[in-house]
Order: sequence, then structure tokens, then C-alpha cells
Amino acid sequence: MNCDMGESFGAYKIGLDEEAVKYISSANIACGFHAGDPRVMAHTVDLAVTHGVGVGAHPSYPDLMGFGRRKMEVTPAEIKNYIIYQAGALQAFARVRGAKLQHVKPHGALYNAASVDKKIARAIAEAIYELDRDLIFMVLAGSEMESAAREVGLRYAREVFADRNYNSDGTLVSRSHPQSVIKDSAEAAQRMVEIITTGRIKAIDGTAFSVQADSICVHGDTPGAVEHMINLRRALEEAGIKVIPMGDFIK
Amino acid sequence: MNCDMGESFGAYKIGLDEEAVKYISSANIACGFHAGDPRVMAHTVDLAVTHGVGVGAHPSYPDLMGFGRRKMEVTPAEIKNYIIYQAGALQAFARVRGAKLQHVKPHGALYNAASVDKKIARAIAEAIYELDRDLIFMVLAGSEMESAAREVGLRYAREVFADRNYNSDGTLVSRSHPQSVIKDSAEAAQRMVEIITTGRIKAIDGTAFSVQADSICVHGDTPGAVEHMINLRRALEEAGIKVIPMGDFIK
Amino acid sequence: MNCDMGESFGAYKIGLDEEAVKYISSANIACGFHAGDPRVMAHTVDLAVTHGVGVGAHPSYPDLMGFGRRKMEVTPAEIKNYIIYQAGALQAFARVRGAKLQHVKPHGALYNAASVDKKIARAIAEAIYELDRDLIFMVLAGSEMESAAREVGLRYAREVFADRNYNSDGTLVSRSHPQSVIKDSAEAAQRMVEIITTGRIKAIDGTAFSVQADSICVHGDTPGAVEHMINLRRALEEAGIKVIPMGDFIK
Amino acid sequence: MNCDMGESFGAYKIGLDEEAVKYISSANIACGFHAGDPRVMAHTVDLAVTHGVGVGAHPSYPDLMGFGRRKMEVTPAEIKNYIIYQAGALQAFARVRGAKLQHVKPHGALYNAASVDKKIARAIAEAIYELDRDLIFMVLAGSEMESAAREVGLRYAREVFADRNYNSDGTLVSRSHPQSVIKDSAEAAQRMVEIITTGRIKAIDGTAFSVQADSICVHGDTPGAVEHMINLRRALEEAGIKVIPMGDFIK
Repeated sequence: MNCDMGESFGAYKIGLDEEAVKYISSANIACGFHAGDPRVMAHTVDLAVTHGVGVGAHPSYPDLMGFGRRKMEVTPAEIKNYIIYQAGALQAFARVRGAKLQHVKPHGALYNAASVDKKIARAIAEAIYELDRDLIFMVLAGSEMESAAREVGLRYAREVFADRNYNSDGTLVSRSHPQSVIKDSAEAAQRMVEIITTGRIKAIDGTAFSVQADSICVHGDTPGAVEHMINLRRALEEAGIKVIPMGDFIK
Repeated sequence: MNCDMGESFGAYKIGLDEEAVKYISSANIACGFHAGDPRVMAHTVDLAVTHGVGVGAHPSYPDLMGFGRRKMEVTPAEIKNYIIYQAGALQAFARVRGAKLQHVKPHGALYNAASVDKKIARAIAEAIYELDRDLIFMVLAGSEMESAAREVGLRYAREVFADRNYNSDGTLVSRSHPQSVIKDSAEAAQRMVEIITTGRIKAIDGTAFSVQADSICVHGDTPGAVEHMINLRRALEEAGIKVIPMGDFIK
Repeated sequence: MNCDMGESFGAYKIGLDEEAVKYISSANIACGFHAGDPRVMAHTVDLAVTHGVGVGAHPSYPDLMGFGRRKMEVTPAEIKNYIIYQAGALQAFARVRGAKLQHVKPHGALYNAASVDKKIARAIAEAIYELDRDLIFMVLAGSEMESAAREVGLRYAREVFADRNYNSDGTLVSRSHPQSVIKDSAEAAQRMVEIITTGRIKAIDGTAFSVQADSICVHGDTPGAVEHMINLRRALEEAGIKVIPMGDFIK
Repeated sequence: MNCDMGESFGAYKIGLDEEAVKYISSANIACGFHAGDPRVMAHTVDLAVTHGVGVGAHPSYPDLMGFGRRKMEVTPAEIKNYIIYQAGALQAFARVRGAKLQHVKPHGALYNAASVDKKIARAIAEAIYELDRDLIFMVLAGSEMESAAREVGLRYAREVFADRNYNSDGTLVSRSHPQSVIKDSAEAAQRMVEIITTGRIKAIDGTAFSVQADSICVHGDTPGAVEHMINLRRALEEAGIKVIPMGDFIK
């Protein structure tokens, strides 16, 4: 279970990190481009390490005003530098705290761009590989990011979204669609158990498709977020699925 | 010989890095807070490594508009985080380029504040130490930074300024003073040879005082900058002084 | 009654503007340097105009990460330009909404600096005067800002703080002092009624001093903020004091 | 003749504004989002007013690192607010200097987006109209911006580029094409005289097309820029074409 964290900035607070950190296994920590600042990063890394949660970098386009949710026409070469800068800064906070950076997961519009754009996915994979070839690239299952990780020879974790509906081609149903988000906590949890135990999930059109899941993305800044996490965690455990840090099972 | 580098930003260019890098032994590279951006950092690290120049981080207050030259009332705890963030980001570019970060030198108003403020100096020293205890803290000779480096158990390099006049207490003559800057290239070079060979230098009031110099700071963005460097380098060599990277002789 | 508003930024939310706007007469709206962005400014101006609340600019040092609460060594000439830029931008949103900018009140560390620094106070007063000589400068009663407003020939409103204790010289008790903030809603309201009806207030050391109050500053982002406003407003009305926009009574 | 100006930022300098201002009739002044800061804006407005040059705002996407040259997926509503903010700030500097804002011209990637995207063009036109309905919208001749200006009822000036080749549909030849830029000063000047006297210009494929030109865009930051301006100005005058501020002839 992974969750975006450390998205506060200066006097601004977003997320229930102190609560969420108790239920997850990997934290995707903002690095200052869409959210986060040095103080928040230090604090969030400390929080993750204290709770035995894997420390991940969550780099973004440089767009604080848009929270990294707006696509920018940035060249792959430039994106590569952005990843090194941001992941490098977070890596330093991990080292200072006696920990090791575990993974990198792009944020928001950059995540979406990297899912479908071969060159962007490749630029990110190369940045991660050159920074530390033991890092894990957290990717959307079945996306260009997964391909890029394989090409570059990087470990990767395929993630699925607990609270989102999927199209039959494996992409996420757009947020503009009324049924994009699964609000029922029990249903979301059941879907995740199904994905992990059967390797298949039902798309919004009723058809089923295959999907490999190494990590489940949950959200820490929505109403009921913590309750959803507790329900999901319980459902997984009842199904005999153990939640452990990715670094322990991704080869 | 050390020189500030990588101070361009986006479409903006400052400095003659391509020329200056040929004559110096250590580069203080901006990290995005007062100047520099990920692309510029990647390029400047590459330039330094290609020329066998030691790679240093040049962190600052977060003040791009003021080029880091304006004092900000930032707490020591916050400064510590700023140093980890910036030096960590630069460290990543060094690692990606197959090099190792050699030193950290605060920039502008932060350098000035750390020279006289025990707590700020200490915060910076701790940040560097925790990041990597083999790093060298580049300090103003005789300042609070030098004391902090000793207290923390960090290696340090004491720097002197080739083109600046000193007060008899070892501080720099304020830039508002008409004779703060030594414009004559030969005189500046002669002063540096004198400092290194005798450990003493003449202050603006004519008295001499002791000063230990491990590194000489030169500027790369002033008229005649490159010529000054060439003259200084020649004067040092004629005096039998070898210019080598700090990492090779600082214990 | 005036209140800081529009301090959200991008995805970040601060303050209960929608509630607070119902009880105040003047809004100090952030202009993008310490908080606020163009969308937030447009929205907040709309909110103020809709509720018949006077629109004011709340300019700051350029320090989003520090929320404008950190002193910066910025020259008076530069501060003048910062005020013109920020107040000008807010003025545009007011004009587009069919309203007129009513006042300007510096934010945070800039407010504190302008209270005691003659040159900074003067730079701000000149900026406001040159922008529109009908504007009101909202000043700390008895401060250098009040003097500067008089010198420049600008209208001004002297403000007092409902929830803060004062020293006997009229300055605010530092926030580091345990009794700096008055938490009791009834006591705070009573003090304001006293100031307005008697022109005097008791300092923290028990002595009374004179103070002229044209406006009362209340806060919209603290626990119980809205309740405090309601209590204060009721106490003022019971004492026969009408709360009206400053533009209607400041000459 | 219009030229982008005020693109310096903090310690960074771009452009030969002091020279260019002598030869142009309208200045497009950066407003802080892609370039420019309050000090630079004050200085550039002063420069323009001193030389009798029309003061224009040159708003951009918020992307200092990319100099406003990277497309961002920003909603039209948000763009409208960005224009009000930036043009409002510049308007304030004009007012303080005793002048009036004459026109607004979007910068870089925003200009390109507005040329082909009806909604973005419309958002910009509305922002300008609501700010001051006497303002002139400087548009690419024949673009969506021209249509939007007409729809909104805003005055507009159609501009052509002295140093750029055109496609036969009236769009600019992409900068990636080897013949996108016309480097020969005399040829560029001759083309402009032709456009103005005949209303037609030869496209890169040899065909001629109609184009209305109210203003010619020249650049102030390229090698030979000032010389090009002098040659163009002389050629126009020899052809009996007077260069006057747009405000004097745009209805």
C-alpha cells in the first residue's frame, strides 16, 4: 500500500500524514516542485522511517500553483534533470535520517504523461537508474513506464488504484466520468483482494482484464481516507495477503 | 582556487563558466535557490568533472529575485533543511556524472550570516556532516564557520578573497567602502602569494594580521575575470605554489 | 473590523473566508507574494464585494515558503516596487468586479518592519499615494506607518488588535510571551469597546495608555475565529458602536 | 513597431532595452510570470514613457524557469485571471509614472496557444476588455485572437513578424525549419514595406497571401537586433510609412 505524503508547504497543510502513515507500507513524498518544502520533507521522511514505511520520492513538473496537475510541454532531457534534482534532494533527507530511498513515483500530470509517452517514461527511468540502480520505479501497471523500467533494467512495482474504476484497456476511467471514483470502502477493498488473488479485475463496461499489482495506491487527503485504509488493510489481511515494503519482494 | 559557477537560470545567463573552469580547482555550484536550475546544474557538474575541477554545492536562502544577497530571518533549523535539500540535489547530479561532491560553501547573504552567527554556522556544519562526513565545509578564514566545522568534526577549507581588502580583524572591508575591491590584477595576485607563503596579509589600515588560506576565491562574472585568474595562477606557479583540488590536501 | 483574507494558494486552503466575510467591514486580501494566487484573488474580491466589504490589498515580502513572516533585507526602493506590483494587481481584480480598492495594509514581517522603520514606512506610503491618492493606508496605531501616512498626505486608518496584549509603549507584546494573545472572547470584545469609547487601553503591566482606533483587526484562521467575531460585533453594537466601511468615515 | 522588453529578472539581464527603445513605438513589457520583476517593470515603464513609446503588458504562463515558452494545460478561466493579475500590475506601474497602459500582448507559448485556441483567445480578450475597454489587444494577424477581439468588441492591432517566414495559410514557419528566420536585414525590411503597401506577402512556398498589418514585431535580444531595427525603420520611412504609437490610429 502506497500513499502520497508530505504535500504540505510552508504554512499550508494538506493530508493526514500522521494518521495515514500507520496503515501504509510505502510513502511517496513530495519534493518541492508541486508541494513539499525542505522542512516538510525532513519531517515526512522522519515520519515514514519512524513507522517503518518505505521512503519514496514523488517528483513533479515545476508547478506549485497548479499542484503539478497541469501538463507542461517539457522536453524529456529536462524532465530527466527534474527527476534527478527532486529525487536527489529527497535521497539526502533519507540519508541524513539513516534510511535509504526505496522508490520513485512521478506525480500528477507527469505520471499521466509518463504512462502514455514512451520518451518521457524512458527519461524518468534513466534518471532513476543513474541515480541509484537499486531504486524501484513505481509505475502504472501496463503503462509505458512499465516498459521503460524493463528496457532500462530497473526494478519496478506495478500499482493499481483502490478507489478508481478502470477502462477495459487498463487505463483509468477519466475523473470527469461520474463513476470514475469508487466511493464504497468495502467494494474498493474487495476489488483489490480480487486483483491480487486472481490477477484480473472488472472494467467499467463489465468485461474483465488482466492486471498485475505489486502495490495499491490509496489517498490520504480525501474524506474518510483513513477509514478506507483501515478497511482495505483488514480485507487484505483477512484474505491472507501480507502488506510489506516493496523493497522486500520486488526483484 | 575556487569560483562560483552555474549561476545561470532558464533563459538567463550569468558567468563565463566555460572559460573560468579551465583555471580553477574547485567549483561552487548554485543549487536552484538563488540561481541555477536542474539543467544548469547538470551542465555545470559535467563541465567541472570534465575539467577535473572539484564539485561543490553553493546553497543559499530561497531568494531568486534577490540572487541570495538579501538577509532573511530564517531559523537555524530551517537553514539546516535548506542545506540538505540543495546540497543533496547537487550531490545527485555529481553521482549521476560518476563524481563525488567535494565541498559545500554557503552563498551570499547566507555566507555572511554564517560568518558571524554561531547558530547559523553550526546548523550548516551539522547539515553537511549528516549528509556525508567526508565533505569539506568551505569557510571564511577565522569566522564562526571555521569554529563550527571544528566543533562538529568536519573537514574545512579556509578561503581568502583575491580581490578584496581586509580589515585588521580579518573581516572583509564592506563593499560600500571605495577601496573594498582590489582591481589591480598583479597586486591581487601578489597578495595571495604573500598570504600563502607568509601566513600574513596587510589590512587596509596598514597593519598586518595572520590568516590561514587553503583556497582562494576568484570571481567569474566580472570584467577581466578570466585575465585575473590567469595572472593569479601564473603568480602562484612562479612562487612554487601548486593549485590542486582541496580534497587532495584537506585532512 | 478588518480581517486578512484570500490566503489560500493553488490546492492549499487557509482561512474561513466564506464565514468571516459576513462579520467584517474590510478585507485585507493577499496578493500572491506570501499567499494568494490570481484565482484566489478573483474569488476573494468577489466575495468581499458581494458582502459589501471594503476591498484592501495585503502586500508582503516575496516569501511564499515563509508566508511573509520572515524579515528580508529589502531596500525601501524595492519595497515601493513590490507594493505597486501587488496592490496594482489586486486593484485590477477590484476594477474588473466593478469595485474600487479601498485600502492597503502590509502583511506580516513587512508590517512589523514598517511599524518601526521610518524609511520602509515612507516607501510604502509613497507607493500607495502614487497608485491612487484616495487610498487608505491601514497602519498600526502610533507607529512609523502612521507618521509616514501623515507626511505623504495619505488617509490612514489606525488599527488595534482585538486578541493581542499591548506593552505600555503601544507596541504589541511579542508572540513569544505567554500572555501575548487574549484568548477569552468576552475580554477581547470588552477591551475593544473600551478603546473606542475611552481612547485608552490597559497594557500588560497594568498601566493605561492612549490609543486611537479606526479599525479592529480580527483573525479568520484560528480556532473559534468566527465565534470571536460574532461576540466582538455584538459587544460593539450593544455599546452603540456601528461597524461601517473605513472609506465612509476616514477623511 | 513593437518589441518585447523588460525581460531581465533580479540579477539577470536580457535584452538591449536602452538601445531598442529608441527605435520602436510600442513596448511589450514582461510582468513577472516568465520574466520581469517589480524593479525591472518600474524601470522599463519609465524607459518607455521617457521615449514616448506605448506601454504594453506582456503576460505569460507562470513559468520563469521555461521563460514562458512551454505550453501548460491551464484552463481558460485561470488564464483570464493570470492576464488580469499581470496586466493589472503593469497598469499600476504605468499609472504611477503618469502614463496609461496602451495594449496587451500575450507572450511565448501563451501567444501560440491563443492564436489557434478559440477559448484561450476569448479568455484573454475578455480579461483585457474587463480591465479597461480602451485597451488594444495585440494579435497575430488572422488568428483566433483577432476573431476573439472582434467578438468581445475590443480594439486590436494585427502584428506581423519582420524576421520570420510564413506558411501559405498565414501561420509562422516553425522555428525548427531551417528557413524559419529571415536573417538578411534588407530582405526583412523589404518584406515589411511590401506587406504594408500591398497587403500581401510571399509565403515560404512561393505563393502570396493577404495579410493586414498594424504593427511589426521586432526582437531586441538577438545579435544585430538594433541594426535590424534601424534598417527596418529607414526602409519604412523611405517608403513613406510613418511609425506612430498604435493608440493613435487603432480605432
